[in-house]
Amino acid sequence: MSDVKLIEPRTLKGFRDYLPELMIPREWMLEQARRVYRGYGFAPIDTPALEYAEILLGKGGEESDKQLYRFTHHSHDIALRFDLTIPFARFAAQYINQLGTPFKRYHMGPVWRGENTQKGRYREFWQCDFDTIGTTSNAADIEVALVIHDLMRAVVPPSCLLAGRASDGLDHPSLARPANAAVEGDESKGRFVIHVNNRLVLNGLLEELGLAGQTAMVLRCLDKLGKVTREDVQKEMAERAGVTSAQSSRLLEFVQMTGTNAEVLARLKSEFGANAKAGEGVRRLEELLDATAKAGIPDGMIVLDLSIARGLDYYTGTVYETFLTDMPKIGSVCSGGRYDNLAGLYTKQSLPGVGASLGLDRLLAALEELNLLQKTGTPAPVFIVQFSAERIGEYQKMARSLRAAGIGAEVFPDAKKLGQQFQYAEKRGFKIALIAGPDDFAKGSWNVKDLAKREEKKGVPDAEVLGIVRALLAV
Amino acid sequence: MSDVKLIEPRTLKGFRDYLPELMIPREWMLEQARRVYRGYGFAPIDTPALEYAEILLGKGGEESDKQLYRFTHHSHDIALRFDLTIPFARFAAQYINQLGTPFKRYHMGPVWRGENTQKGRYREFWQCDFDTIGTTSNAADIEVALVIHDLMRAVVPPSCLLAGRASDGLDHPSLARPANAAVEGDESKGRFVIHVNNRLVLNGLLEELGLAGQTAMVLRCLDKLGKVTREDVQKEMAERAGVTSAQSSRLLEFVQMTGTNAEVLARLKSEFGANAKAGEGVRRLEELLDATAKAGIPDGMIVLDLSIARGLDYYTGTVYETFLTDMPKIGSVCSGGRYDNLAGLYTKQSLPGVGASLGLDRLLAALEELNLLQKTGTPAPVFIVQFSAERIGEYQKMARSLRAAGIGAEVFPDAKKLGQQFQYAEKRGFKIALIAGPDDFAKGSWNVKDLAKREEKKGVPDAEVLGIVRALLAV
Repeated sequence: MSDVKLIEPRTLKGFRDYLPELMIPREWMLEQARRVYRGYGFAPIDTPALEYAEILLGKGGEESDKQLYRFTHHSHDIALRFDLTIPFARFAAQYINQLGTPFKRYHMGPVWRGENTQKGRYREFWQCDFDTIGTTSNAADIEVALVIHDLMRAVVPPSCLLAGRASDGLDHPSLARPANAAVEGDESKGRFVIHVNNRLVLNGLLEELGLAGQTAMVLRCLDKLGKVTREDVQKEMAERAGVTSAQSSRLLEFVQMTGTNAEVLARLKSEFGANAKAGEGVRRLEELLDATAKAGIPDGMIVLDLSIARGLDYYTGTVYETFLTDMPKIGSVCSGGRYDNLAGLYTKQSLPGVGASLGLDRLLAALEELNLLQKTGTPAPVFIVQFSAERIGEYQKMARSLRAAGIGAEVFPDAKKLGQQFQYAEKRGFKIALIAGPDDFAKGSWNVKDLAKREEKKGVPDAEVLGIVRALLAV
Repeated sequence: MSDVKLIEPRTLKGFRDYLPELMIPREWMLEQARRVYRGYGFAPIDTPALEYAEILLGKGGEESDKQLYRFTHHSHDIALRFDLTIPFARFAAQYINQLGTPFKRYHMGPVWRGENTQKGRYREFWQCDFDTIGTTSNAADIEVALVIHDLMRAVVPPSCLLAGRASDGLDHPSLARPANAAVEGDESKGRFVIHVNNRLVLNGLLEELGLAGQTAMVLRCLDKLGKVTREDVQKEMAERAGVTSAQSSRLLEFVQMTGTNAEVLARLKSEFGANAKAGEGVRRLEELLDATAKAGIPDGMIVLDLSIARGLDYYTGTVYETFLTDMPKIGSVCSGGRYDNLAGLYTKQSLPGVGASLGLDRLLAALEELNLLQKTGTPAPVFIVQFSAERIGEYQKMARSLRAAGIGAEVFPDAKKLGQQFQYAEKRGFKIALIAGPDDFAKGSWNVKDLAKREEKKGVPDAEVLGIVRALLAV
């Protein structure tokens, strides 16, 4: 093939490869999300990446349509999904009678958007959605807040480190640890905060201000608070929705209200006592704060934030956004809300529901950019040196006994010089090396080396290797 | 929206949705594969679903090109990947200097082929590949056989049941159990058999028969053995490669040789003692059988099968196929081999390697068709009845304490009639229900009901619920 012209190996613009250093924490995060969702009884589903274009078109607005990867295949007009919500709406319309309600699902998978690329934003990225449909009960709204809390605790550990943990063994405590262990403590404090609001409250306020007709546009402007200045928001409201400066001042003063949850609630009650719909919104928020506290969520993790509007028209009740304390600038990493009708375009059956989505790759890219990922090149902690090819069966026997105990172990494939093998082991990030030459095999013993501390225990009997490896890994 | 014309909710032909009943065992199988791969030190990678068409075209032959989902996007000629090997070749050419060799990776993800649909074959399906590149050492070939064994043991439990297990709790033994626990026993026997061969041996035989020039075509015909009759294979060899009836008889007699591994090896040695290349193939097969036995693989799980050719031209050494004992008709569910050069189209750097691929969705579809999946609608085993909306905080508190212990628990979202709630719980497949009404809250106790046995323990104190649930689930 030496005369063949080489094809340049490259990815499409806006797409990326995941090398092990990044894929190990990414898989770890996906596992954590899966564990939390399952723990609440959400069941997994999957849908095809490709859908008929008519299913997807017009659902996310003009912007989404433009960003669609759409093409004709054997005269069918098809496209790659741009989110997991529309496919779920289609799915729900198709199967809800078979599945029954309430139906709780999670769905984790890639979506594609041909948008202009920016730092940390790619044209293919994973979303991790969960929803409960077929009920209007506030219990489902409350649960969404609990899931977001446990999920964030699980994927954003205290010092933002994700790997290191992932590399410590097959059954490393961080993998095995239930997402909400020790949740009664204060461990999750300070890492993230969940902001909640209710559209009914915002609607009530807009009614009061005589702006009920411009709700969608006003909320879309409001959604930009934090990204642009207060003045810019007012200016845009004036231009796009004819909101007077007095109206927008009052609106902004209201939504930017500060105080404890109790203080904000008290003010909302006095304000909306007479408004049935807004009052219902206040009642649901109060219940949510009360029940999540009773369920064990530490104080301060969930805050009432009247400025949370969620730009999407279809939200009608509780809305959620989640911000990392150390990285507020990346925006909400887990957002969602309640909607009156999921699948109205595909079925006459009304399917109210509530859910949220973790922006996994966005969070990962942020942690990567901030250099907060502890990187490793191997998911296995133990490295077994190859002294001689004749002993491969024995090396693999030892490796398999470690694997059977939940500890990953790699056997080097070539009987290269020891220096080269250790160089490889260090580059990859193995923690422990096991070495056995002919003398050791004669004695039935191994040398166990802690690669970080460069300490070696010599002549460890075969049967004691597992115990020592366990102790060194503290698993 | 009642006046809006509804869009018919449907998937593209040849594509499928995964409902929880099927997605639960599918996710469980993916987890098992991940666990086994990691245990051997294979690191995860991911590549985009979309590639430049020039990367993919011409790599899988004319047939693959025709099946490509290929289109133009912003004047770029792009396509969805049809396997994980070509993207890995592109990936390796791009990053191998950064990653270093040997490099061991696994990659699990969907691929797309616009092929004619048949029962159990879809146009989007997941593959689970693993490869070691950058070494010609037989240790890597031996390891592939070990990985296939542990993988198959992990994804095809004794009675082919996959779920039931998956539904028993977050940390059900089947999820936590290392893939090769108790591997020294005979538990894996009878469920599957790994067939190995070496291309060098086949090449030696073809040389002897004067058919060296027609190797590719002859092997492609040979690959059909088992799917068509011996006579048809001979006929096709005659027509397509000019093989005489004497030649093909001798060839078929040879590759269909029966006997124990030791008997076949003895015959190969006497046959190819003088042929350097074929002799090397025999030596590698002998080493593989010896080392895998030493590493603990039970007798009979790996068999020499000279008829295994693997139709793909790029294999040059050891080849592997894996058949389910109870379902041989679905063909090999885990196949692979050694190749001399992975990425020759993209880089001048020679990258020899060896690996295999689990046809996850093929295996799943077969188990589904044979009705061998024990289906469940929930990944959580515990159902918490909702007596009154005011107690949501307390219900979720109990649920979270179970989750913290690794046991999934769902709280019903509405305070509906008990009968309706139990109906839901049974439909979904929950194992245990926890019930607490006002009197129970006053006493701080719960009623624990085994839904299968319809037995109920009343008045269980709060602190004892976890222990009883654990005992009932035997986790």
